[in-house]
Order: sequence, then C-alpha cells, then structure tokens
Amino acid sequence: MNELVERIRREGKNLGNGILKVDGFVNHQVDPMLMDACGKELAGRFAGVGATKILTAEISGIAPAISTARHMGLPVVYARKVKPITMPDQVFLTLAPSHTKGRMVELIVSPEYLGGGERVLIIDDFLASGATIMGLVRLAQTAGATVVGIGALIEKTFEGGREFLQSLGIPVESLAAITSMDDGKIVFSDQ
Amino acid sequence: MNELVERIRREGKNLGNGILKVDGFVNHQVDPMLMDACGKELAGRFAGVGATKILTAEISGIAPAISTARHMGLPVVYARKVKPITMPDQVFLTLAPSHTKGRMVELIVSPEYLGGGERVLIIDDFLASGATIMGLVRLAQTAGATVVGIGALIEKTFEGGREFLQSLGIPVESLAAITSMDDGKIVFSDQ
Repeated sequence: MNELVERIRREGKNLGNGILKVDGFVNHQVDPMLMDACGKELAGRFAGVGATKILTAEISGIAPAISTARHMGLPVVYARKVKPITMPDQVFLTLAPSHTKGRMVELIVSPEYLGGGERVLIIDDFLASGATIMGLVRLAQTAGATVVGIGALIEKTFEGGREFLQSLGIPVESLAAITSMDDGKIVFSDQ
Repeated sequence: MNELVERIRREGKNLGNGILKVDGFVNHQVDPMLMDACGKELAGRFAGVGATKILTAEISGIAPAISTARHMGLPVVYARKVKPITMPDQVFLTLAPSHTKGRMVELIVSPEYLGGGERVLIIDDFLASGATIMGLVRLAQTAGATVVGIGALIEKTFEGGREFLQSLGIPVESLAAITSMDDGKIVFSDQ
C-alpha cells in the first residue's frame, strides 16, 4: 500500500540488526488517519474469508486490528501478556518470543471471548519471523476456532515468517513488504 | 452517553472491591463500533480546547484514544510501561500505581513525540482515583506541553479522581459515570 510504504520511506529508521523504527506513526505515536487507511485496505483484502472475529496481541497490534475490525464490523480480541484480575482462572495461554524483550512472553486469551466455531482473522503490526502470529494461531486452534487469514501492516520478508506460516494454507497479506535492511537501507519489494 | 451506559448495564460485571469488568467490549475484547461512537462523542466534547495531540497510557487507553483522535484529526502518543529498544536513552518517565498489578508501574514517553508547545488532550478508558491520569499530566508538563482536557470512557465517581484532578482547572469529561458499586450493584449518576 503506497501510503504506508511512502511513510516508512520518509520516517522509518533502520536501527540495525533488522530493527525498523516506526515509532512516529505505528508503535508509540500513532497516526489514526494512516491506521484507518491501513485498516480499510486490510478489510478489503480479507472481505471474502468469512471472518467472525479479529485476534491480535497487545500492544502494537491493537491499533491496526481495531481499524480493520471497524471496517469489517467485527469484534477484536487482543491477547494479554499479563493476566488481569478480571480474567477467569482458566485461560488459553501460549508462549511466544519477544524481539524487544529478548525472552519468551505469555499470550493469554479468555475462553469467554474465543470459542469453537469462530472464524478468526489475525492482524498484527509486524510479520517478521512469524513466531508471535503462530502463537496467536495456537491460541485460536486450542479454543477450537478456525484461523482464516493473517494480515500485517509491515512484513520483513527476510525473516521468513511467510514461509513459516505457509503450512496453514490460508491467505497472508501485508501492506508494506521489506526485502532487505542491509547496510542501513530499507528496501521494499516493489523496488 | 446512553450507548455506553446501556452496554455496561447489560454486560458489565461488578467483581467486588470496586472492580468493574468490561472485558467484553473495552478491555480484552473490543467493540470497534461502540469505541468509534465513544471517540466521536469525546471529540465533540473537546472540539473547543485546541488540542494538538492526544496522550494515553498503554494498554487499555489505546482504543478510546485512537477513536477520539481519528475524529479530531490528531496524532496519539501512548505512554509505554516498558521502554522498547527503539526508544532513545533519554526519556520522560514517571511512576503511577497500577490497580490490576498492585504495584507502581512506569509510564514512559519519548521526547521525540511530546514537546513544548503541544496542547495535550488526555484520553483513557477509566477515570478512577485519577492517579494514572495524573501521571500522564506530569509527563506532559515535564515535556513543556500544556494539558487542555481529560476524557475517559468510564468514571467511578466514588474513587474521587475528578476532585483530585480539579486543581488543574481544565475540563474533565466521562461518558458513563458510576456513583456506587456497593452490594454488587452498578449505579449510574443518571439513576
């Protein structure tokens, strides 16, 4: 999607080691108009998958998931990383590696809001190694739900997430695909 | 706001000790259409304050802040509770008590996205004791910004946050005000 690619070109920073800083419009400061345009685009791409619910992970997944959900008229569930006191004792829990924390984090969903028969669309900010998204897939499958699609704002194709998720046999979409971040550059797939 | 009050009446749960569970539409599962209506209402109430930026705290503040921001055409900054690796070494940091964690948590904002001259509207999901919101006020003031308004989806008037914030002399708005949660009830201010 041109609007997102251009914004990354203009304001994204390559911090080295494959780390892309988009804190000015996605991860710390959010541009709600850009996020709305991204949500509309993702909603269009997944219009035909018959989703009944959108699943994401706190924290940075919330904005793109809600924007997409509003355009699809669907509820969003965001997996928590710390179990709040309002959640029942029995939950769905899986572990996924955190890039920014350098350790495993928990992804927790209450059975109240994810159940058998749901058709789940997973939306996140980044598709990198695919490990966090695969954690969300496991949560959905444990709940007896069917994952029908995976969408991300930004894909780092060089981290192999798309191949990792390929065995699921469902559509995987991203709005800006970065093929290389070597030598301080940010190379997009359409270059 | 009727739509939110009715939803709390229907689906909110009084868990005791002043804890209101709204996990089905605000805190874990989010209803993006309700959130959009709340954002529109808050945007209307603060249309005249001349805000240039919306400030909130992760995690549950993100959805209402972004919805409000979209209707006002403003960027959102959400204070982080753990400093990500993409953030510079020098940050604005304050401590605020966490109800759900039972301890103090850090609220961190990068100076890149909050600066002198900004007119900051603070939006959060709950206004209870006002401690988290006062933490955001301190961050904004430390950055040299002016706080011009405070808005929350749900106010628990019996926790005194509004009085605590009164000395700031700025408008404080909430969309559903709960005056009592004694005896398992949820009593709204319009009852």
